[in-house]
Amino acid sequence: MIAQERIAILGLGLVGGSLARDLSARGAQVMGYDIDPLPLRAAQRARAIREIVDSDFTTLATATIVVLCVPVDAAPTLLEAIAPHLGATTLVTDVGSTKLAIGTRAAALGVRTRFVGAHPMAGDHRAGFAASTLGMFTGARVYLCPSAESSTAAKTKALDLWHALGADVRWTTPEAHDAEVAYTSHLPHLLSAALARTIERAGHDRAALGAGGQSMTRLAASSPAMWQAIVATNHEAIARALADCAAELEAVRETVARGDVEAICRLFTHTGRWLAEPTP
Amino acid sequence: MIAQERIAILGLGLVGGSLARDLSARGAQVMGYDIDPLPLRAAQRARAIREIVDSDFTTLATATIVVLCVPVDAAPTLLEAIAPHLGATTLVTDVGSTKLAIGTRAAALGVRTRFVGAHPMAGDHRAGFAASTLGMFTGARVYLCPSAESSTAAKTKALDLWHALGADVRWTTPEAHDAEVAYTSHLPHLLSAALARTIERAGHDRAALGAGGQSMTRLAASSPAMWQAIVATNHEAIARALADCAAELEAVRETVARGDVEAICRLFTHTGRWLAEPTP
Repeated sequence: MIAQERIAILGLGLVGGSLARDLSARGAQVMGYDIDPLPLRAAQRARAIREIVDSDFTTLATATIVVLCVPVDAAPTLLEAIAPHLGATTLVTDVGSTKLAIGTRAAALGVRTRFVGAHPMAGDHRAGFAASTLGMFTGARVYLCPSAESSTAAKTKALDLWHALGADVRWTTPEAHDAEVAYTSHLPHLLSAALARTIERAGHDRAALGAGGQSMTRLAASSPAMWQAIVATNHEAIARALADCAAELEAVRETVARGDVEAICRLFTHTGRWLAEPTP
Repeated sequence: MIAQERIAILGLGLVGGSLARDLSARGAQVMGYDIDPLPLRAAQRARAIREIVDSDFTTLATATIVVLCVPVDAAPTLLEAIAPHLGATTLVTDVGSTKLAIGTRAAALGVRTRFVGAHPMAGDHRAGFAASTLGMFTGARVYLCPSAESSTAAKTKALDLWHALGADVRWTTPEAHDAEVAYTSHLPHLLSAALARTIERAGHDRAALGAGGQSMTRLAASSPAMWQAIVATNHEAIARALADCAAELEAVRETVARGDVEAICRLFTHTGRWLAEPTP
């Protein structure tokens, strides 16, 4: 029962803020922490959090669940700071876009049995508590990435947490997760930035973009700090995905250059069918 | 006054259908044509058109404006078929995504003074009359591409037509237009298809896409016939844009591979600012 949990949300940005809103709406006792006092105050006003975690983290001893909702390069350091204050059965989880780095740190800090990494495939290019909403995780795919040492109790609690929010939970490993999101999330974001840069360098104004060009460059306005952090923790897999995409793009360029328009028709027919495949 | 015009819309897909709806709503006498009887009937039921253009095009003699709304590779042939039936002062225009090919054909067919090419930057990946809506062109950028021989009367009538629909009209040449949209529209669509193919080839399911991945692959479901036609009429400029983007992508890959995360932060900071620039 989520209403019986005392949940600490550390970091009240878009995802942390939305999580706090959802959990409070379901009756959980939510406490919040942020290095910036503004989102803390906004979260209190919005009744997304009931109390504030003290800056030396001693309040965390009473939490049954702690969720790290900070950029993935800040999460390991934060985990190190809070580790001494955690209860013996507290579930420690996170919402970061990469799972290997934080999992490795959890093991090194001796919280491996209590740690189950999570990654909700939700959110958009906006950032901050102001962009947070109720119901962000309803129907969203959420990857849970336990280590081999994660306890059954921790895994069950993590599953219950996301099920309570209506998420579509998928179990995977940190390794498989990071390899997959390099293609399904990290590549699209970097591609959007590369496209924006290409159009700008060619001397065209962003106001000249049609609806298609706008939607393809929208992610280039994503948080620079967040993407710096994601690349820092998954650069090998992302570089492979970028190389694959560059090869695909070169194949398309070659097809266009030789005027093989039937091949372009086949390409869009193929991708259109792929996109229309029913969800498994 | 648009209400005094007799306007023939040839091709009742997404753009032609939306144009017919808007013009009828503003009191113009709209007649429609489509090789497929289904959109014709749907347009009549929706009161988007008042009458049907006969299949030998003799009805067009009474039209004051004729708008070609067919794929860009079909437009030149259609223009050839209707040319003998046009009145001496009829404005002939179109809505295609490329402007050189149709402009060249208009000149060859002797309708160069009456032809002013147009390209509304509106619509999305959907196709067909069923996707057409009222108000699609309100605030949308519309390029008008007259030739050096286009008459002042034709240019004025084309301007009035799009102003009546609330469009943001920009005058340009067919050459400059095709070079620009290769970057601002054609490249984003082909990039979306290349991304979808990359993710599929890496063995990942389209259901694994988050919100960002979904928005970046959405255009890969665009009409194969339309994109075949656009590439057929602008392949040199599109190949250049693809080559530029591939070079940009390679630069990003190289940055990621060597773990230069500060450069990734600078990239997103730069593109975020570019996207936030006020519209000129």
